[in-house]
Amino acid sequence: MKRFVLSAATVLAAAGFFSSAASAQFAKADDAIKYRQSAFTLLTTHMGRLGAMARGDVPFDAATAQASARVIDVVSHLPWDAFPPGSNTGAAKIKGDPWKDAAAFSKLQADLKAQTAKLPAAVATLDGLKAQVGATSRVCRECHESYRQVR
Amino acid sequence: MKRFVLSAATVLAAAGFFSSAASAQFAKADDAIKYRQSAFTLLTTHMGRLGAMARGDVPFDAATAQASARVIDVVSHLPWDAFPPGSNTGAAKIKGDPWKDAAAFSKLQADLKAQTAKLPAAVATLDGLKAQVGATSRVCRECHESYRQVR
Repeated sequence: MKRFVLSAATVLAAAGFFSSAASAQFAKADDAIKYRQSAFTLLTTHMGRLGAMARGDVPFDAATAQASARVIDVVSHLPWDAFPPGSNTGAAKIKGDPWKDAAAFSKLQADLKAQTAKLPAAVATLDGLKAQVGATSRVCRECHESYRQVR
Repeated sequence: MKRFVLSAATVLAAAGFFSSAASAQFAKADDAIKYRQSAFTLLTTHMGRLGAMARGDVPFDAATAQASARVIDVVSHLPWDAFPPGSNTGAAKIKGDPWKDAAAFSKLQADLKAQTAKLPAAVATLDGLKAQVGATSRVCRECHESYRQVR
């Protein structure tokens, strides 16, 4: 029997948490860039905390891990409406063309959300944390390799 | 009979969502500053969206309003662990001394979280949205007037 886990993001999605019309709400490309980079900063910070536990740099603590996992689960839904077409300007760190590759970019977003939804339950044990942080990081990395400029 | 509303943040808090030990996890003041400013960017964006509906600049839509309200509810818990003592450096925009005024600063954080917890239910109607966005904004403003440098 498959274990049934309802992630925070699943609950919030059911409650209308994520609005696909949100991208229309950024008045300027710079606002969208700042917003999505802010979401990525929160994601990076909390993935970093889980990574430190996975590596043993920080002692495993289930409650602390779940706190980060839930932030990641929720915030991983936010950046994607903040990529209005042409917003590879100013402080943007995009490489390639995610708008031209719309289907591939959307698939990576879906892959990420599928992995982050599993994090809160997975991090209850250190083995679960290691496995699911690994699976989640692979999606992060795959997307960064295609679309994120390193500078 | 008082209406019983369980906010997302209340649920997450009960589930160990918010870690008070998190401030120890920022290796550098700059990391903490970037993290808290990122959280504030998300808060400002979503408060701005609710404010636009309150003013009638954007048509009221309960689902869109609740999406923003839930982001605000969750993210309003995040910045406070990212104020390690002495982190009024670099890109920080602090005025006054929130560390010296620790009790007053903590009270403002508690006030904010109390108001943001009411947002998801309140924004179901335009009148509720106007009232609760007003009450939440007053706490934002009170804290900014004491501790936020405008530049």
